[in-house]
Amino acid sequence: MTRADMKHGGMGIPPRLYLAGPDVFVPAPAARGAALRAVCARHGLAGVFPLDELDDGDDPAWHALPEAHRIARRNEAHIASCQALVANLTPFRGPSADAGTVFELGYMRALGRPVFGWSNSALPFAARTRAACAPHAAPAADGTWRDAEGLMLEDFPGMADNLMIDGAIAASGGVLVVRDVPAPSRWQDLAAFEACVAAAARLLRG
Amino acid sequence: MTRADMKHGGMGIPPRLYLAGPDVFVPAPAARGAALRAVCARHGLAGVFPLDELDDGDDPAWHALPEAHRIARRNEAHIASCQALVANLTPFRGPSADAGTVFELGYMRALGRPVFGWSNSALPFAARTRAACAPHAAPAADGTWRDAEGLMLEDFPGMADNLMIDGAIAASGGVLVVRDVPAPSRWQDLAAFEACVAAAARLLRG
Repeated sequence: MTRADMKHGGMGIPPRLYLAGPDVFVPAPAARGAALRAVCARHGLAGVFPLDELDDGDDPAWHALPEAHRIARRNEAHIASCQALVANLTPFRGPSADAGTVFELGYMRALGRPVFGWSNSALPFAARTRAACAPHAAPAADGTWRDAEGLMLEDFPGMADNLMIDGAIAASGGVLVVRDVPAPSRWQDLAAFEACVAAAARLLRG
Repeated sequence: MTRADMKHGGMGIPPRLYLAGPDVFVPAPAARGAALRAVCARHGLAGVFPLDELDDGDDPAWHALPEAHRIARRNEAHIASCQALVANLTPFRGPSADAGTVFELGYMRALGRPVFGWSNSALPFAARTRAACAPHAAPAADGTWRDAEGLMLEDFPGMADNLMIDGAIAASGGVLVVRDVPAPSRWQDLAAFEACVAAAARLLRG
């Protein structure tokens, strides 16, 4: 057994990479999942899309749950079955990434496995937040910016999103790739995603 | 040793509850932390606010990190030191909760400990999202609502936020308390928070 085999479980089984992101909301989510998986396969990884069926079948107790709760448990099980996670952090209906995606990033981080992020916005988080709060956000007497309700705007140099997100990715050994993609293509362009997958493959396949 | 002592570590040490939320951004965050801790103390719990110093001192390796990354690691250490987490899920600069708060909720959920949530908005997530995307969101031919970029609006009955959030809270044994608090008070009113803390105390102190 080679060292690379040992790192990804042996027998040539590709390491599994969970594909977190609002990609499940695009007009053709199954095709998007297939496109993301194809990129992973080119780098020797098995992409796991949130809409995938669970390999090991549902827990019978889940069937009594409302659909939304079944989906939540399935996604948690998918994450736990993967060796790493890549999150689409492109800003979603506000200055930050999609809430479900951020939840999943925190979940995988707590499992102690590497987390990666990509975003098709290169504007720093502080600038995005100011723009989102405009025209009501303004600097207070002490120089910190506050929104219309008086809540401070987080402003640390170089952050792509809330510091828990950037911090977790760096601490886990992952990378965060941002690209300036114009709005019409920001939910289609996969260049930043592929850069992330390549980095994940280097880490997981050695 | 009584059964209650055993459940919270014995010797009368109160169970620790991590206080996730954008409360760190209010104009007087130290006073807010003290107010939240006082509620916890009334229910026999020790509230841990994100801005608290770490009891066991910083890891020396952290000192070389940028401040934002040190804060992220400190918060992760605080969460790991607690028996449960209560998240302020009041919508924050968009239809969903604060991204840092949601990350922390996912982190604690993956540790297998109970997570609780409170929100001072009682409007369901689907209605909040439609309002946030107005006037550009509209129902497509198949009846699903899509935003201006064609991304679907999540619409499951009874969800207070993204399904990963509601799902995790329910699956962990926690509760999600929502109250309709008018905008001027929504970052001050602690009634929903106290209801959450009381539920956490019942679970943790038996």
